[in-house]
Parts: sequence; structure tokens; C-alpha cells
Amino acid sequence: MADHGHAENVTFRQCAHLATPDHVTADFCLIPMGTPTASVSQHIANIQKFLATSGIKYSMHSAGTTLEGSWDEVTKVIGQAHTLLHNQGVVRIQSDIRIGSRTDKVQSIEDKVSVVEKILQDDTAKPATEE
Amino acid sequence: MADHGHAENVTFRQCAHLATPDHVTADFCLIPMGTPTASVSQHIANIQKFLATSGIKYSMHSAGTTLEGSWDEVTKVIGQAHTLLHNQGVVRIQSDIRIGSRTDKVQSIEDKVSVVEKILQDDTAKPATEE
Amino acid sequence: MADHGHAENVTFRQCAHLATPDHVTADFCLIPMGTPTASVSQHIANIQKFLATSGIKYSMHSAGTTLEGSWDEVTKVIGQAHTLLHNQGVVRIQSDIRIGSRTDKVQSIEDKVSVVEKILQDDTAKPATEE
Amino acid sequence: MADHGHAENVTFRQCAHLATPDHVTADFCLIPMGTPTASVSQHIANIQKFLATSGIKYSMHSAGTTLEGSWDEVTKVIGQAHTLLHNQGVVRIQSDIRIGSRTDKVQSIEDKVSVVEKILQDDTAKPATEE
Repeated sequence: MADHGHAENVTFRQCAHLATPDHVTADFCLIPMGTPTASVSQHIANIQKFLATSGIKYSMHSAGTTLEGSWDEVTKVIGQAHTLLHNQGVVRIQSDIRIGSRTDKVQSIEDKVSVVEKILQDDTAKPATEE
Repeated sequence: MADHGHAENVTFRQCAHLATPDHVTADFCLIPMGTPTASVSQHIANIQKFLATSGIKYSMHSAGTTLEGSWDEVTKVIGQAHTLLHNQGVVRIQSDIRIGSRTDKVQSIEDKVSVVEKILQDDTAKPATEE
Repeated sequence: MADHGHAENVTFRQCAHLATPDHVTADFCLIPMGTPTASVSQHIANIQKFLATSGIKYSMHSAGTTLEGSWDEVTKVIGQAHTLLHNQGVVRIQSDIRIGSRTDKVQSIEDKVSVVEKILQDDTAKPATEE
Repeated sequence: MADHGHAENVTFRQCAHLATPDHVTADFCLIPMGTPTASVSQHIANIQKFLATSGIKYSMHSAGTTLEGSWDEVTKVIGQAHTLLHNQGVVRIQSDIRIGSRTDKVQSIEDKVSVVEKILQDDTAKPATEE
């Protein structure tokens, strides 16, 4: 069954034409390497400024920056962030990217947090049953 | 100085035209979610078959699959792997991607390992100076 | 020179006694696998409740949860989160962890964000020099 | 039901006593920051030498090093690798760790690869049904 991912149902000749996902959330942590100091805040600030002009939906936190858009949009923007810093003299850059797609619903960055917070609030409102 | 990443040297109007890096190495670990069992080997095998037809340079190991090519090529292929499994019934997929670019040289997957192994061999050949 | 990491300066006999770093920031994204549905919000909520009782400093965002403490504390807590969900019936769990340590200063989760925001504010306050 | 992770089944008072998993596979990519050059091969070689003396099961590849052992063992060794490089003068280090645990079986690093390769071989042996 296709549900179990059995290979015999896959027509690999058609794979070259596979589209990438329409909607993803991604989170990236970009690390400049071989820089004169261990501080990377100026580089991160430059990327935030770039993101502000890019039109992509983004949100910075202490361990990375979260993006929302199509697969192609978010991966392009991260690649451009690499080039931006390379153009400023950073010779080597390594990024860690967490990227997720789903077909059952479109879930925004905000939805992902609010659904967990809702559960936590509902639990608090309930009489405790734990021992 | 550009080396320190000062923002005043960046012309952000031009950022929309930034290219993505020509050559990267990337390593991805793709995780199907909400699948009937905890086993994902069939899904991983399907992706390997897809990669074999894709023309991209790739190498599987126990914790992921390493790719080499342009930024656009490697990120597209990983996105297509998501779509491949979605088309086979996997409703949610999360990938962790490590991706690196550098401007000082073109370093292949093989180079990265061999340069470390060379150092280890040279150290072994030397008389030990450790206490 | 030690600065260049030359191996001849390392006394590997002593490595078994190496301590782990005193202070780190870590960010983890935990993924339950083989669960009946693609939704993991209840699992994430359970982990948040556990973290609240653990005494560790933590902060949830849409792509993971950030922790601050010693290396041993933060890695232990993430491991306990695995066990917590295993005990609730999740047979397989994969986490992605970003973890950083530095010896030049103690930098909190809040510091990492505020230093970037400070740069962005200062840039905004300056007369624009970009073309 | 416990299977669905409902919080009401969790006794959080007991969480402080939760053990970490007995057996995990982990893969880490360690990045020295603020180093004089973009090359990190000497640092990686030093870590390989340390791992060789540590007694942990490990395997290097071009995008990281895979470890197998208990949660506590593998996370301790990675933390010690941070300290090793800090002691050699690296002021800042960021690692990306993929770590997985499962309760249905003990799966070694080698098993994870061989089960996928077995599927690929079996598929090749079968008459092709793809169009």
C-alpha cells in the first residue's frame, strides 16, 4: 500500500518533475566560521536586515530564526543569507536548518505555539488528577 | 571593514538579486511523522532510489544522507524527497539539514574526510610526544 | 601552538577526566515517531509541563525549546524528556539539538537576542548611508 | 490513553527521577567559532583522537561523527570534546546533535544502514513494475 511507502508504487521516472512543498516552516541557525572574533551578533543583525527587505515571514529567537513560506522561498532566502555574509568577507558558513512540511493542514508559526499553550492552559484549569 | 560585517557596507536594495552559493555540501536527516510504525527504513530506501535517479552526488550513512552540488540543487532535491513521501501517504515530515558553503576553496565530501584522516595518519607516524 | 589546535599539545591520557562545560545554551526540537497521528502538540505540552517542574531555565518557541544551564543539566533534561514520552507509549523519538559553549563570557538566552536587537536599533537611529 | 500522550496520566512529581535512555545513536557536527582560519580539520582530528581513547563506539563521516551508547555516555563525550577544544584555545563552539532513542528494539549504527541496503537490494532483484 502506498501508505506504507512500498517502493513498487513509485514511478521514479516521474521524480524529476516532483514539485517541492508549497508551505513549510523552517528554522535556521547560521554560523560564520573563521571570523576574527567569536562574536557573530553583527552578522546576525545583517541577516535580520536582509530578511526585513526580503518579504519573507520571519521571527528571530535566541537559537535561530524561523521562516514561513514555500520550500523554494525559505531555502532561497537562507542561501542568500550565506551569500550576503560571504560578500562581507566571511569565507565559510555552516547552517543548521530544521524544516517541516505537512499535507493535512497549513500550520503557521503562531499556530504551532498557540496550540501547545492552549493545552497547557486547559490542563491548568482542570482539577489536578496527578498524584 | 567588510571583514567585520558592519552593516553600513551592505546595500540592501540589491539583496533581492543575491545569488545562492554555487557549491555546498549538505547533510539531511528526514523524519516521517504520524506513520503507522516506528520503522522508516522503507521510506529511506525510497528516497535513496529517488536520489539515484536525480543525478545529484549523494552518500548515505546511518544518521542521514550527504549531498554535494549547488545550493539550489541540493535544497530542491531534499524538497522533492518530502513530496515523494507525501505522495506515498506520509502526512508530515521534518528534516534536519546541515549545509555549508565556503569561498576559499571547493571542498568535496571526500576531501573533508581525507584531510582529517591524513592528519591522523601523520600523527601516528610521528614519535609520540604526549605524556 | 595551542591556538591552532595542534595535537601534540594534547595529553590524551588525561581526556577521560575532561569536564563538560559549566554553562551552555541549547535548543532542542524533539520529534515523536510512529505515533497514531501527525499531531505532536500534546506530547510537546507534556514536555513543557515536565520542564516547568525540572528547575531548568527554558523558553519554548515554534521550532523548539531553548534551555540554559550546565552541559550536564541541559542534556540530562532532554534525555528525561525522551524517557517521559517513551513512558507514555511513544516507541521512537528523534531530537535535533543545537548546543553552544564559550569561554570568553557567560551569555544568557536573553543576551543573545538583545545584543542583535541593540545593533538593529542603533542602525535605525543612524542616518542611512546605503544606496 | 497513554498512547496519545494525555497529560493526565503523567505524575510530574516523579519526573525528577526519570532516567535517561539506555541506548541511543547520536550524530554530532561540532563547529569551532572565532578561529584564525576557516579550516577546522586539525580540530576534528583532535576530537577523533580523543574519541579513540574514550572507549565509545564512533564513526566519522564527512558531515559529522556518529556515536552509539547510553544517553549519558554519548552526551558526556560530546561535552568533553567541547572542553578539549576550549582547552586548546577555541573560545566558542557550536554543535548540532541528532539523537534518537527507541523502546521497540536496540538498533546499532550498522543495523540502520544495512536494513535500508537490504530493501534496495531486494527491490533490484525483483522484476521492475515501475512504468
